Amino acid sequence: MKALIYHGPGNKAWEEKPKPVILESTDAIIKISKTTICGTDLHILKGDVPEVIDGRILGHEGVGVIEETGSAVTEFKAGDHVLISCITSCGKCEYCKKGMYSHCEKGGWILGHLIDGTQAEYVRIPFADNSLYHIPENADEEALVMLSDILPTGFECGVLNGQVKPGDTVAIVGAGPVGLAVLITAQFYTPAAIIMIDIDDNRLNVAKTFGATRIINSGNENAFEKIMSITQNKGVDVAIEAVGIPATFELCESIIAAGGHIANVGVHGKSVNLHLETLWSKNITITTRLVDTVTTPLLLKTVSSKKLDPAKLITHRFALKDIIKAYEVFQNAAIEKTLKVVLSD
Amino acid sequence: MKALIYHGPGNKAWEEKPKPVILESTDAIIKISKTTICGTDLHILKGDVPEVIDGRILGHEGVGVIEETGSAVTEFKAGDHVLISCITSCGKCEYCKKGMYSHCEKGGWILGHLIDGTQAEYVRIPFADNSLYHIPENADEEALVMLSDILPTGFECGVLNGQVKPGDTVAIVGAGPVGLAVLITAQFYTPAAIIMIDIDDNRLNVAKTFGATRIINSGNENAFEKIMSITQNKGVDVAIEAVGIPATFELCESIIAAGGHIANVGVHGKSVNLHLETLWSKNITITTRLVDTVTTPLLLKTVSSKKLDPAKLITHRFALKDIIKAYEVFQNAAIEKTLKVVLSD
Amino acid sequence: MKALIYHGPGNKAWEEKPKPVILESTDAIIKISKTTICGTDLHILKGDVPEVIDGRILGHEGVGVIEETGSAVTEFKAGDHVLISCITSCGKCEYCKKGMYSHCEKGGWILGHLIDGTQAEYVRIPFADNSLYHIPENADEEALVMLSDILPTGFECGVLNGQVKPGDTVAIVGAGPVGLAVLITAQFYTPAAIIMIDIDDNRLNVAKTFGATRIINSGNENAFEKIMSITQNKGVDVAIEAVGIPATFELCESIIAAGGHIANVGVHGKSVNLHLETLWSKNITITTRLVDTVTTPLLLKTVSSKKLDPAKLITHRFALKDIIKAYEVFQNAAIEKTLKVVLSD
Amino acid sequence: MKALIYHGPGNKAWEEKPKPVILESTDAIIKISKTTICGTDLHILKGDVPEVIDGRILGHEGVGVIEETGSAVTEFKAGDHVLISCITSCGKCEYCKKGMYSHCEKGGWILGHLIDGTQAEYVRIPFADNSLYHIPENADEEALVMLSDILPTGFECGVLNGQVKPGDTVAIVGAGPVGLAVLITAQFYTPAAIIMIDIDDNRLNVAKTFGATRIINSGNENAFEKIMSITQNKGVDVAIEAVGIPATFELCESIIAAGGHIANVGVHGKSVNLHLETLWSKNITITTRLVDTVTTPLLLKTVSSKKLDPAKLITHRFALKDIIKAYEVFQNAAIEKTLKVVLSD
Repeated sequence: MKALIYHGPGNKAWEEKPKPVILESTDAIIKISKTTICGTDLHILKGDVPEVIDGRILGHEGVGVIEETGSAVTEFKAGDHVLISCITSCGKCEYCKKGMYSHCEKGGWILGHLIDGTQAEYVRIPFADNSLYHIPENADEEALVMLSDILPTGFECGVLNGQVKPGDTVAIVGAGPVGLAVLITAQFYTPAAIIMIDIDDNRLNVAKTFGATRIINSGNENAFEKIMSITQNKGVDVAIEAVGIPATFELCESIIAAGGHIANVGVHGKSVNLHLETLWSKNITITTRLVDTVTTPLLLKTVSSKKLDPAKLITHRFALKDIIKAYEVFQNAAIEKTLKVVLSD
Repeated sequence: MKALIYHGPGNKAWEEKPKPVILESTDAIIKISKTTICGTDLHILKGDVPEVIDGRILGHEGVGVIEETGSAVTEFKAGDHVLISCITSCGKCEYCKKGMYSHCEKGGWILGHLIDGTQAEYVRIPFADNSLYHIPENADEEALVMLSDILPTGFECGVLNGQVKPGDTVAIVGAGPVGLAVLITAQFYTPAAIIMIDIDDNRLNVAKTFGATRIINSGNENAFEKIMSITQNKGVDVAIEAVGIPATFELCESIIAAGGHIANVGVHGKSVNLHLETLWSKNITITTRLVDTVTTPLLLKTVSSKKLDPAKLITHRFALKDIIKAYEVFQNAAIEKTLKVVLSD
Repeated sequence: MKALIYHGPGNKAWEEKPKPVILESTDAIIKISKTTICGTDLHILKGDVPEVIDGRILGHEGVGVIEETGSAVTEFKAGDHVLISCITSCGKCEYCKKGMYSHCEKGGWILGHLIDGTQAEYVRIPFADNSLYHIPENADEEALVMLSDILPTGFECGVLNGQVKPGDTVAIVGAGPVGLAVLITAQFYTPAAIIMIDIDDNRLNVAKTFGATRIINSGNENAFEKIMSITQNKGVDVAIEAVGIPATFELCESIIAAGGHIANVGVHGKSVNLHLETLWSKNITITTRLVDTVTTPLLLKTVSSKKLDPAKLITHRFALKDIIKAYEVFQNAAIEKTLKVVLSD
Repeated sequence: MKALIYHGPGNKAWEEKPKPVILESTDAIIKISKTTICGTDLHILKGDVPEVIDGRILGHEGVGVIEETGSAVTEFKAGDHVLISCITSCGKCEYCKKGMYSHCEKGGWILGHLIDGTQAEYVRIPFADNSLYHIPENADEEALVMLSDILPTGFECGVLNGQVKPGDTVAIVGAGPVGLAVLITAQFYTPAAIIMIDIDDNRLNVAKTFGATRIINSGNENAFEKIMSITQNKGVDVAIEAVGIPATFELCESIIAAGGHIANVGVHGKSVNLHLETLWSKNITITTRLVDTVTTPLLLKTVSSKKLDPAKLITHRFALKDIIKAYEVFQNAAIEKTLKVVLSD
């Protein structure tokens, strides 16, 4: 089969690889119908994730059709259309039992990381019963690719951890695909105001059409001052960091209201300054989270009932074999106005 | 009357001052029976709290007897024995209505800070109905002085924010009076293990008699390594910071288990390094809080039912007029083996 | 002034009464701008609420302008436009401190019940600081009358107690004004499906325009069978009772899914059969609540941000002096297609 | 092997049966070391649980040693000492994923009910990885038999659902083994008072030694009046029903304070009167639950750390082959002063 192979920092190729086979009785082999590219894949290609070895097939998102299942798989059978979770869950360990699949002792984020991933014609999914979801009849499969990672990430790490509630004022720092996933799912809880902060006018304009009530280009404006002015110097009830650098996290620290919640979504490479000299007495909560995808069933219900339209995050479509080109378009997001790309078989 | 007056950094005196009078209809005048000294008073005396002006009467803890009440006070009358909360609550503002009295728009921590405090023969308590508590008959009034600040602080900022639950492994960094208040109230929730970390052997030994299951002198031992060894490299479920310096907060960051809670209790003067480069994916919660004293009624019930014995925090007793000497003993805590001092009229 | 006076079961009159005066320093006198009639007022008129004595002015909802305040009122002044809460809260008792204003030791539901109410030109509001809310500039005051009682009742007793969450299937039994208030505010949490059950086709059609995804006329159809069929025999995640009779509560018992929540909103006059022989093992929660109006600030924010449009509950408008006629229209709801009436000065 | 066989209402026998064999790859065969008898077994013998067929081996509690595992079992191997949960969990279905194992689509309470149980020399446990727990080294295995059912039942259905918190006043109606399990685990949360109600003086006296602060023999005293007097007519914060008949549930309804929680633990055979005519406005919560055993890991930690001593529930010990005699002693609980019996191989 063909697959996108990582060959060390800066190098990747669309190459022939052996088709995966069942290794454990809990495995399933999936023929990929649709996959996508994540910001994390770009991090890997920069060499930021050293556990990814030369020869690894990238990708941790996608939908497909089951080709074969191991003998212990009971919830799925060949021919089933499935959504692949970016997080693999054994369903048996201490962490899985408390719904913290991200820290599964045998799983977690392993696809396209510690084992071969989904940017390929076929993928082997360990612990299939706990790591795949049935696709409802008549669903838009392309849209569901957004449920592998980006929507549960925005929802769990940003919205649920941020405890967004009706009437709240929410700031989302970062209007990239994940920040926009936060924006979309924050509206499940009917906040009064959602302020979106970014330095890309296109993304901010997209944010506006997706429901942001205010947009701030922090390249042109002082975001801190603007937000304090909007909130009569109280700050925001919830600040969600969706970039992953110190400056954006510290912006969240500066705009949070007493009693508020800072929810970190971004992947950070360095430590940040936590201003406890002012925050110690502000009664705030800061949370971090690697997505557990424990809300995937809930999100599937919101899609089926048309409360959530994941397709609007998709800006570009390619054939799977054109994935190298798709990476280019995804990397040149500012110029190409890319949010998420979908690759189809 | 006599009172302890702040005269700028390093200077205090037991001096004559006019007896306070009712200024607002919601005020009460209390004759102080017992008061105490807080670590925060020492901070003020170092000049760390610049809002405290020359001439201010210090102190924000105590019990006493009501001398006089303003016309709008309905829940108390002259002669009532009362516990004074360190936090003043108007009962009407947005913050008070959500139980966040610490941020009361007209109150919060004002006693011995923005208005005259309790280290005096008399004190004026604003918003008496929402800032005082009736002392139950036959209660040990001396013990209840510990409920003005230190016990609700340990309980709310440490135990409740840390979400201590049965079977948990809890680390408390700092075995001073507040850390010990955390230790005592953490046991309300029956954790399996409580590891106490400090550099003072006496305090650690006290911690042991107060219920700590392990003690670590971080002056002699590598606390991080010891805790990781005790927890089979998982870290602790709850880490509570009760010192207020970067090193102890960063120790909490290093020992927290995936899914764990770091609860800050310490008063910090500087920012700390938050290691998001490792913590971003650990699904942790960090909380800060200025005590709200919203749990004072609950704590009073645990005292009345003998589930909580606050008196054991008291190591030294003085007459109120000997407060200058009491400060010395409180400041030389390591030598004098002081936890809390009580001053009586 | 003129007011609507209760004269025993079946009797009421629009009569001259002395204008109310300040009795306590925490009182305010309000000139009523708009008021409305509640289902509870009809109960009183039937004689179902024996505490209401002959001579009582009815009504517990309304907006108005402050005429005068007692000396202890600090948050409001003459001329302020205010929303009157149906629940009076002293702000000082054990219940008020935990946000359970409904059980306030000196307040609770007293307006138009134990003291004179709002269906009058003027009303005295005790504990004004904790029982009134400022009306935001440029607000539609008529719409805000719906925030005195019906919207917080639907939201607190139905939606919050029912723990509605994204993706849920919710059944609301009763499409009267309160059931519709549940329907409107349930959508704050983006359930997947809301099934509305009633015997009045007009109200069901209104429910459809207000966001119900399914309507069932239980006069024509077997509601139990229909709901089990819609839910593939699982039942609903949340069942909200908004009628107040045994049959509708038992319908909720029969359609609740394992793990689900039954939230009672209706005012009941008799006991109901609780089928513990089947429910004991179904892991369900049943809640009851007299509205606390603790969410009024939240609801005001959702109105200001246009997430909530309370005006759509208003079907008829009258001059205050025509209140007798308004009662007729409200009582003949099925024929007049009445939801809420508004009476204006 | 030998096993206790049900032969229709009133009939049971200790008979030869074929030793169980692995049927599914997720099964394990356990050699029983210790088992016990549950009140539910007596219900079955009365014919109250018609799903139990003639020929069924009874019992759903026990500890043992693994004899053999199916090919898909990964967490256990032959020779492992294990605790058997009374609830079988597949770990894959919607209910298992949300921690509601009691409603597992392929499991739930099936042992000694829908499949053969643990009152035998050997038992087959389906879904072994999710339905067994490793016994810690040096643990008292006999004591752990109490963790199969009775302690998680008391804790989850009674204490957790009842939301017991520090300072609360708790009433437990029924001082049988399950009521006593509630009593023991309620103390994890340090309530101020625990009132135990029963009609058996022996059990009440046991309750006293187990930590009850008040006991009431409702055969001799009016429990309602006594409790209202103890609570100054407020009622209790938490009322836990551990009997399973209408009278005891209605007692809970009558003594619950405004804002309180009624947690049902008892197995009911009939409906009860729910007095909504008074409870509708009392802001209460009623919960039901079939134990999920989701807290077994937590309970194991409390046992290992000596915070919980389950052995004190055991009053009588027998050889497994003397189980018929053990049933007699268990049935004559009042005379024999039986709480739990343990049967050993």
